[in-house]
Amino acid sequence: MPDIEEAPRAPGRPRSLRVDEAIISATLDLLAEGTSVEVLSIEAIATRAGVGKATIYRRWAGKEALLHDALATLKSAGPEPTGESIRVDLVAMLSQVGPSNHDPRFAKIMPCIIPHLTRSEEHYQAYQDIIEPRRDRIRQVLRRGVEAGELRADLDVELAMTALIGPILVQRVLRWHPDLDADKMPEQIVDLLMGGMKPA
Amino acid sequence: MPDIEEAPRAPGRPRSLRVDEAIISATLDLLAEGTSVEVLSIEAIATRAGVGKATIYRRWAGKEALLHDALATLKSAGPEPTGESIRVDLVAMLSQVGPSNHDPRFAKIMPCIIPHLTRSEEHYQAYQDIIEPRRDRIRQVLRRGVEAGELRADLDVELAMTALIGPILVQRVLRWHPDLDADKMPEQIVDLLMGGMKPA
Repeated sequence: MPDIEEAPRAPGRPRSLRVDEAIISATLDLLAEGTSVEVLSIEAIATRAGVGKATIYRRWAGKEALLHDALATLKSAGPEPTGESIRVDLVAMLSQVGPSNHDPRFAKIMPCIIPHLTRSEEHYQAYQDIIEPRRDRIRQVLRRGVEAGELRADLDVELAMTALIGPILVQRVLRWHPDLDADKMPEQIVDLLMGGMKPA
Repeated sequence: MPDIEEAPRAPGRPRSLRVDEAIISATLDLLAEGTSVEVLSIEAIATRAGVGKATIYRRWAGKEALLHDALATLKSAGPEPTGESIRVDLVAMLSQVGPSNHDPRFAKIMPCIIPHLTRSEEHYQAYQDIIEPRRDRIRQVLRRGVEAGELRADLDVELAMTALIGPILVQRVLRWHPDLDADKMPEQIVDLLMGGMKPA
């Protein structure tokens, strides 16, 4: 078992930051290996990270706070819109949906942890805090499209955002359809949603 | 602990069927409570169901076969299309997506078990066998719409099906957007997909 606290000071990153990272990484590793949130313990995290329990409690109030910070590292706001066109911006943003470009532990952890996160309003809010920045980027592009007249004036932006992300998320995370290619879907879904299913 | 095998024969359903149901229900209960597939054991299932391990092994080759049958009970093919209109049929089918009208254990079990099911081709196929009947109903409605000229001739039916189901699935199972009402989404998503996001 590694013991970060006892190890001689390495050059480079400050030790406290390395300890934080080791604790968060140990948390994500345990979750990715199939440990449920209920079973996950500060003791197991401490053992895996090679630190004492007290070291964790000095940094986080408890398991939930640590879990929140650990999950937050798995997500980012995604690319900035370039403003080239609504289509180009939407495709670029949807290409970042799901785990492909992030920590490979995301795909194993995220679906499994959702039932836990939706069980209480407090946890649900933490989960919303994680995904909101990404949602907001797409919302801004859609609003820009409505303002520019490229998208219909009566478009329900929140619904459209969910309609764009939902299919890609189920394909990336759940591999829902055996024959669709998640990498091609951002372009396909944007075009389908733009043109609609009715004959032109 | 209940002991179904030792209990006097109850009137009504045959005992062997009641034993099957108790074993499947015990499996679903344990999964819904957060037991991971890795940790789930025939021994724990037997204890919960009040039967001996041998009783389970007489009925199923092992954990995977039992798991497959247990998950299959959580899903159904959904409503038959009425043929009234493409819109009415699609809305009716999408209203059945996700756990709302089924076993309440579905919502807790399904997201969590997906990483396990997608890990090997054999498990993935079992998962596909469960969802394919439902997918096929929607596929048939879309094909009928294309043939009738109500939907565009070049519609990618598999993509459209995923575009219809994906947003509702993420909202029902993951509660992805805090402000959308999953019960209203079937109608909203069908109308959005029919008309498209561009100005008319």
